[in-house]
Amino acid sequence: MQISYPSALLEEAVQAFSRLPGIGKKTALRLVLHLLKQEEDQVEGFCQAISKLKKEVKYCKVCHNISDSDICSICSHPQRDAQCVCVVENVREVMAVEATNQFHGLYHVLGGLIAPMDGVGPNDLEINSLVERVAEGCIKEVILALSATSEGDATAFYIFRKLSAFPVKISVIARGISVGDELEYADEVTLGRSILNRTPFK
Amino acid sequence: MQISYPSALLEEAVQAFSRLPGIGKKTALRLVLHLLKQEEDQVEGFCQAISKLKKEVKYCKVCHNISDSDICSICSHPQRDAQCVCVVENVREVMAVEATNQFHGLYHVLGGLIAPMDGVGPNDLEINSLVERVAEGCIKEVILALSATSEGDATAFYIFRKLSAFPVKISVIARGISVGDELEYADEVTLGRSILNRTPFK
Repeated sequence: MQISYPSALLEEAVQAFSRLPGIGKKTALRLVLHLLKQEEDQVEGFCQAISKLKKEVKYCKVCHNISDSDICSICSHPQRDAQCVCVVENVREVMAVEATNQFHGLYHVLGGLIAPMDGVGPNDLEINSLVERVAEGCIKEVILALSATSEGDATAFYIFRKLSAFPVKISVIARGISVGDELEYADEVTLGRSILNRTPFK
Repeated sequence: MQISYPSALLEEAVQAFSRLPGIGKKTALRLVLHLLKQEEDQVEGFCQAISKLKKEVKYCKVCHNISDSDICSICSHPQRDAQCVCVVENVREVMAVEATNQFHGLYHVLGGLIAPMDGVGPNDLEINSLVERVAEGCIKEVILALSATSEGDATAFYIFRKLSAFPVKISVIARGISVGDELEYADEVTLGRSILNRTPFK
């Protein structure tokens, strides 16, 4: 359907929104019309929040997570275990692991996964800085917490090879049946792995 | 789940996005991280487009549609039939009707529907200005093209009563089975109406 907008300003705003991932033209129009109904200072606040984040965002010099300061609040926390580092793809995974309350070490944020089809190679990610962190000798364990996809597996394998020269324990988060899942609907690869990696009943 | 953000700037941007309709915290975070990956001038362009629309948007003095000028391009078009006015809820419905290429008259944009539950009464909408347009005497037909909901029906009935004093034809867009719909899945009200309002076979 050829859409004709009654206003060029409206069209530009809709175009801007529809460039975001997962936002089509119809959703973009709905969002723009919603913003148009708000007070001017609310719309300004919306734009300010985005613009300010882009201009002032910092990345932690140690773990490369998004941060308000040069060293993030996790890396500078005195109670966190600096001997254990969890390697994740992005800030979203840091937040997901933090939400579990089960990890008390530090993080290393790669900024993506190795994906040759998308032109992302190892040097586009924070892998060398991870090797440097490990080379300093304080880290005893590296936990690879990457997605269970081919990109995640490739990245994990690449990091494993890079770190195998160092005296550091490298582990991977457990894969198996999700809590709450019914066994009959689990795929055979997941179920197979969860049988092979069975743990003592407690 | 209590979400803890690694950065206050990030949290503010996510909050701003998640105030939009249909955008939850997770989607907001995804959109914000996407914007963060773009070049700074692209992010500025996004903010500019929204901010400029809010500041510079105009509404047509005749039909109240969003416009770049005081009189919109439809109202000022010499080939459009000024004797026929289509009453719609919003700019989205103008665009939907325009996309059909079946209507060559002018519009009247109400800016919403009568919805007492949401605190929207007749005086919050452009109904009086519609009555004034009709009172001028040039308009021969008013087509009510409102949603087939209770709000749409209430608004249509209110407008019908307001306009019944004037010598103007008031019509409603046809309701019936959507093109492509299978009859067995149509609801009984729609099917019933489409039988009552049957048209000669051509």
